[in-house]
Amino acid sequence: MSSSEDSMCRAAVDEALQTVGGKWSYDVISRLYYGPQRFNQLRRALGGITVKSLTDALRQLERQGVVHREVIPTYPVNVEYSLTEKGRDFRAVLFQMRAWGEKWLPGEKDEKAEG
Amino acid sequence: MSSSEDSMCRAAVDEALQTVGGKWSYDVISRLYYGPQRFNQLRRALGGITVKSLTDALRQLERQGVVHREVIPTYPVNVEYSLTEKGRDFRAVLFQMRAWGEKWLPGEKDEKAEG
Repeated sequence: MSSSEDSMCRAAVDEALQTVGGKWSYDVISRLYYGPQRFNQLRRALGGITVKSLTDALRQLERQGVVHREVIPTYPVNVEYSLTEKGRDFRAVLFQMRAWGEKWLPGEKDEKAEG
Repeated sequence: MSSSEDSMCRAAVDEALQTVGGKWSYDVISRLYYGPQRFNQLRRALGGITVKSLTDALRQLERQGVVHREVIPTYPVNVEYSLTEKGRDFRAVLFQMRAWGEKWLPGEKDEKAEG
C-alpha cells in the first residue's frame, strides 16, 4: 500500500473511530436505526443517560454529520433526531464490528469451545 | 432487538473499539498484515513511534489476543510479532471502516461533488 493510500486509510479509520468512539455514540446511533426519535424518547430508551450526556452525544454526532436535528414547529416546539445517509451507511461498520466481536468475545469463544 | 441481544451487540462493538482504539493500534495491526515483523522492523515502518509507545501498543494488542509474540532462540535472541486468527479476522472491520470513511471523509465528498 502506497504511503498516500496508507494515510488515506488511516484518516478513514479515524473518522469511523471518532464517530463511534464516544461513550454513548454507539447507543444513540443504534437507537436511531429504529427511526427518528425525540430527545425524551432517546432518554427513556437509554435508561442510564443524563440530559447532559445525551445532549453532548447528539451534538458530537451532529458535528460528525451522522445525526440530523429537526425542529418541529408544534406548540410546544419539538425536536426530532434522525440518522443522515452517512449515519445509516455506518450500519455496515457496526455489523462488521458486531460479527467480529461476537466471534471473538472471550465468553463467546470459550462457551462455543465447550458447547 | 431484545435487550440481551442489545447488550451482546454493545459488548461486541466495545471489543472492536478496544482493539483498534489505542493511538498506534491501527498502525501496528495494518503493518502486521504484511506478515510477521520484528520490533525494530515495526519501529522503522512506523516512523514516529517511540520504543515505549510501540512496546505498550504491542502489549495491549497481545492482551486483546490480536497479536502473537514469539521468542526466536537465535543468538542474540529475536522476538517476532504476528497477527493471531482473531487479528487477521479484524481486517474485515478495518475494510468496512475504510470504505465508509473514504466515502464520507469531508475532503473526499466535496471533491467528488465538484468533480
